[in-house]
Amino acid sequence: MDAVVSSLLEGDHRALSRLISLMERGDPQVGPAMERLFPHTGSAYCIGITGPPGVGKSSLVNALVQLERGDGRQVGVVAVDPSSPFSGGALLGDRVRMERHYLDPGVFIRSIATRGTEGGVPRVIKGVVRLLDAAAKDVVLVETVGVGQTELDVMQVADTVVVVLVPELGDAVQALKAGLMEIADIYVVNKGDLGGTDRMVNAIESMLHTGPARGWTPPVLVTQAMNETGIQELKGAIQAHRNHLEQSQHLEAQRQRRHAAEFLAIVEEELGRRTREMALRDPDIRAALGAVQDGQAEPYSAAMRVLRDPSLGSRLFAQSDIG
Amino acid sequence: MDAVVSSLLEGDHRALSRLISLMERGDPQVGPAMERLFPHTGSAYCIGITGPPGVGKSSLVNALVQLERGDGRQVGVVAVDPSSPFSGGALLGDRVRMERHYLDPGVFIRSIATRGTEGGVPRVIKGVVRLLDAAAKDVVLVETVGVGQTELDVMQVADTVVVVLVPELGDAVQALKAGLMEIADIYVVNKGDLGGTDRMVNAIESMLHTGPARGWTPPVLVTQAMNETGIQELKGAIQAHRNHLEQSQHLEAQRQRRHAAEFLAIVEEELGRRTREMALRDPDIRAALGAVQDGQAEPYSAAMRVLRDPSLGSRLFAQSDIG
Repeated sequence: MDAVVSSLLEGDHRALSRLISLMERGDPQVGPAMERLFPHTGSAYCIGITGPPGVGKSSLVNALVQLERGDGRQVGVVAVDPSSPFSGGALLGDRVRMERHYLDPGVFIRSIATRGTEGGVPRVIKGVVRLLDAAAKDVVLVETVGVGQTELDVMQVADTVVVVLVPELGDAVQALKAGLMEIADIYVVNKGDLGGTDRMVNAIESMLHTGPARGWTPPVLVTQAMNETGIQELKGAIQAHRNHLEQSQHLEAQRQRRHAAEFLAIVEEELGRRTREMALRDPDIRAALGAVQDGQAEPYSAAMRVLRDPSLGSRLFAQSDIG
Repeated sequence: MDAVVSSLLEGDHRALSRLISLMERGDPQVGPAMERLFPHTGSAYCIGITGPPGVGKSSLVNALVQLERGDGRQVGVVAVDPSSPFSGGALLGDRVRMERHYLDPGVFIRSIATRGTEGGVPRVIKGVVRLLDAAAKDVVLVETVGVGQTELDVMQVADTVVVVLVPELGDAVQALKAGLMEIADIYVVNKGDLGGTDRMVNAIESMLHTGPARGWTPPVLVTQAMNETGIQELKGAIQAHRNHLEQSQHLEAQRQRRHAAEFLAIVEEELGRRTREMALRDPDIRAALGAVQDGQAEPYSAAMRVLRDPSLGSRLFAQSDIG
């Protein structure tokens, strides 16, 4: 493992792949490795790209990668792929997604499936971004389909969050409902050659005025990612947001706050898991479960009854230790 | 509370509203009330309607309600509304959604917001459906936007799940990614007047052949909900699925299996919550959290270190009782 850690610090992509796979499986070797890598992190800038399906997020990521590579910077791309229930794997592979950059040694690309990942996708993505940071990537792009709580949690990893929409008002309403508007640092109206673009830009801007003031007013940009129009401006807006975070000392504060939240989430999740395991072995809980299964008891009230029992805690932890 | 329970059993809508609100707030009076209502449940049939945003789910629900009312049956409608982060409430109110049926005393309509609901949306929806069942509704329709795990969990309440799509292949791919194909008992291609309808029907049917055989092959129907075309056929398909479940004794088995899962989910969630509260008070965990907050420790490895401590359990439960 020491050799893998050393190779990763030199930017070796095979070492990166290896550690990411171990992290996905929840391998116990990852903890000590992360500890060794931690002092070498903190210099990568993480950009989140999210929005409803079909708005052109992958094309935008492609175009941004191209610009960053033109400046000679090392780039990491992490794509969160909702998995097919039938295939069990990612529907869109790395290759299809990023064809253009797949052979560039200055770009590391990885898809993370949202199913079958040990310990939750957001936890793994945060770890993967930290690994890319330690492997001396200058910029890490994280792409998610912004449709659920998991994807919102993933976006907590990004220093700057770009929410991508297209010129359809219904799209903005859906984004609003999905909580995307809450996390946006920059808005992009992609496919800006379609009709209704101005109306869409105005709609977003007027929505911004109804939200809480945050010291940074998210700009609303128009792009056509397919022919690389507006990408330079997007890169500029990301840089402006970065400058804002750095000058206001928000960047460090935001990262530390998120590290604390990440630590607590892992501890809480694991303690919850252990407690649930013990509950499944408890005789009283098993008896109540049996009554519910036989149609003799109502699930909600049966659960409340079991949980009200004052001896539950001492019983659960009498013989097994949670540690 | 006794009076409210009695009124609910007589089908009183104000009593229904009252108990649903108490359930949303996690009020302790709800447990005993559910216990009393439970013997009066089991006769309502629950139909789930889900699919991506904008496919016309509400119009389909409207049309189905109309048909059921024409047959003189009592109907309940539960709409799961993703909430706006700004308004804090449901974006689409009951009125807008179901204008046509709002004044019909044989129809009870309720929106449940996905934010700010005590104890999780799926738990509340399951309870609400059981309340409607006890209030002598013959049919309960549950409508969700099928985009996340929460919505998939909600669909566990339905005896028959209808997945609604429109004639766009990308839509089917998204539904597949979101796990909708796994839970569908019936497919509806709505807006069937659009081009590409046949291609879409064929695409779904060929996807069905790649999935596991389940004893029931989901039919693929074409509708135009706005002008009520194909709704009678949809009603027929739902009845056919119901007959299949009843004749194969799957209906009771499925309901009991889900009741058991519901009981366990409530117990596990609550035990997890209590355990997390205790963790936040533990001195060692607080010290590690401080180190992470100050940038002195890496979050993942710090969490693993704390969780490996063999004295963690006895420390957590030494002075406080989980029960």
